Formats: sequence, structure tokens, C-alpha cells
Amino acid sequence: MKRNFADWPCSVARATQLLGDHWVPLIMRDAVQGVRRFDDFQRSLGVARNILSDRLDRLVEGGLLERKSYQDRPPRSEYVLTEMGRDLFPVLASLAAWGDRWLDGGSGAPVALHDETRGHDMRASVVCAECGEPIRLADVEFRVGPGYPDEVDAHYDLRPRLAPSPQK
Amino acid sequence: MKRNFADWPCSVARATQLLGDHWVPLIMRDAVQGVRRFDDFQRSLGVARNILSDRLDRLVEGGLLERKSYQDRPPRSEYVLTEMGRDLFPVLASLAAWGDRWLDGGSGAPVALHDETRGHDMRASVVCAECGEPIRLADVEFRVGPGYPDEVDAHYDLRPRLAPSPQK
Repeated sequence: MKRNFADWPCSVARATQLLGDHWVPLIMRDAVQGVRRFDDFQRSLGVARNILSDRLDRLVEGGLLERKSYQDRPPRSEYVLTEMGRDLFPVLASLAAWGDRWLDGGSGAPVALHDETRGHDMRASVVCAECGEPIRLADVEFRVGPGYPDEVDAHYDLRPRLAPSPQK
Repeated sequence: MKRNFADWPCSVARATQLLGDHWVPLIMRDAVQGVRRFDDFQRSLGVARNILSDRLDRLVEGGLLERKSYQDRPPRSEYVLTEMGRDLFPVLASLAAWGDRWLDGGSGAPVALHDETRGHDMRASVVCAECGEPIRLADVEFRVGPGYPDEVDAHYDLRPRLAPSPQK
């Protein structure tokens, strides 16, 4: 990835900088399903070892995975989700629900998320935590947020298309 | 993208096949914020024109955007979200909320989603539509879903790590 989106004034861009490569969502899918070891990721995804190694390094640097030694001779590590990595699971669940709706070829979800605690299959839905209503594009006005940097390179400044913030 | 994830038995993989390129989430971000014209996407993202053209074509083929003519001479089109494309907005909102939590450098969300209908800023949260509880990895058992194909190439068959379905 040549460009650096990490300092763009946009959380989608910042997240994309970490996750943008098409292998990364699949590595994270494997990780939430319990895969931890390099060879298991490699077998599961059929990805070249150098690419997998690079993407795992990136996820460790980014804070989503933690490298833990499980064997000394020869030295072997496994990759364990951090709190930040586990917190991505709801995003993956909402992406999977979108795929279940639009890309299932009419045959239903290939993988079901079963809620063991409550005893039913989950249906991921993105709601507003303030009012509990589903988030819909039709309701949204995009505003300059509290964390919008004061100085932003003109070519990626979003302010011309955002509504002003009441606070800022 | 060399591999074809579209026929993998996994909605994350299928969605990644459509969205995996790191430009695509940014193009969709622009689209939900009202960008419609090629030159406006190009200016906003600073992306090479041939790459942008390819990604927009892919999004049209994939069903997320629709090409609509707005001028005859010279012929000019704009790219409008389809229902499928608008339905991706909650996923982007959940990704942005994750980025707001983990990548804001402590300064808060750069962009706020204001709910114009109800008069407050939105906080995207992924819940289970069955019970209204937030989706957490700790509660989930991954099961073979109703749409899991009967025949799957061994190298990407997920069943060895999924719990059996009660129905299947």
C-alpha cells in the first residue's frame, strides 16, 4: 500500500490503512474463529508465506494481534487477539450479515453465529447506542467531529462537504 | 486480486472479494457522503484515474453503485448508490466507530454522524436483532449455516472448525 491514510481526518481511512489489504479481513476472520498458528492461517487461506508473515506483522504492529511464544525449541509463536482485535469482531459480524443478505445466492448464511449464552442464532444489526434505532444513511448528517484536526492538507480535507460542528 | 473468494463458504470472504481493495471502502465513504462524479472521487482520494475507473466498474458490476448519465455531450455519468450500496453504510459506520475508539489518538471522532431525524450524534453499535444485546465474540459459537454448500474444496472447507448445525 503506497499511500498513508493513517493521518487522514477520517476513521474509515485510518481503519483502512490497517485493514485495507484483502487478506487482512480473512486473517481476522480466522483469528476470531480460533486460528492462532502461522501454519494454520497459511493452510486455511492458501496465502503465500511471505505475504502472510507481512500481514501478521502489520496486525501485531497495529495492535490487533499479540505474538505469544508457545514453544522454545524450535521457537514458535502464536497470534492471539488483543482487546482491540476482539473489538473488531462486531464489525466483521456486520460485514458478514451484509454478505449474508446480498451475496448468499439465495441459499442462506453459510456460517451461523450462534449465541451460546442466550440460545439463539445472532442477526447482526448496526444500531445507534443513543436511541437503539437502526443506523440508516437517510437520517445522517456528516459533521465536523470533535477530533477533526485543525490543520489538514487541502487535498484530503473533508470540511468542504461536512456540516459545521456546533462545538467547533 | 488474484484469488477468487467469491465462492468461498464465508460471507466475509465473499464481501472481501467485492470490497477487499483498500480504495473501495474510501470510494464507498465518499459515495455515502454524497460524492457522485468521477472527477470528485479522483480529487477527494488522490487516486490514479485508471485505478479509480477499475474500482468504480467493479462496484457497478458488484451491484453497489449504479451508473447514471447526467450529460449527453460530451457523455458524462455519475455513480449513485443502489439499495445494496446504501445497505453497506451501517457496516462503514461500525468500522468508523471502531476507528474512532482505537485510532483517534485520544482526540475524539474526526467526523460525527449526526442523526437529523432524532437530533443527536449517533454512536454505532452492533447488536443482535433477536435480543438487542451487543454482539460479543465471547458469546459466539460458529456453526455450519443453512447456506453452507454441500460440496466445498477441501482447502477452504471451514467445517472442521465449525460446530454442526442442528438442521444440517
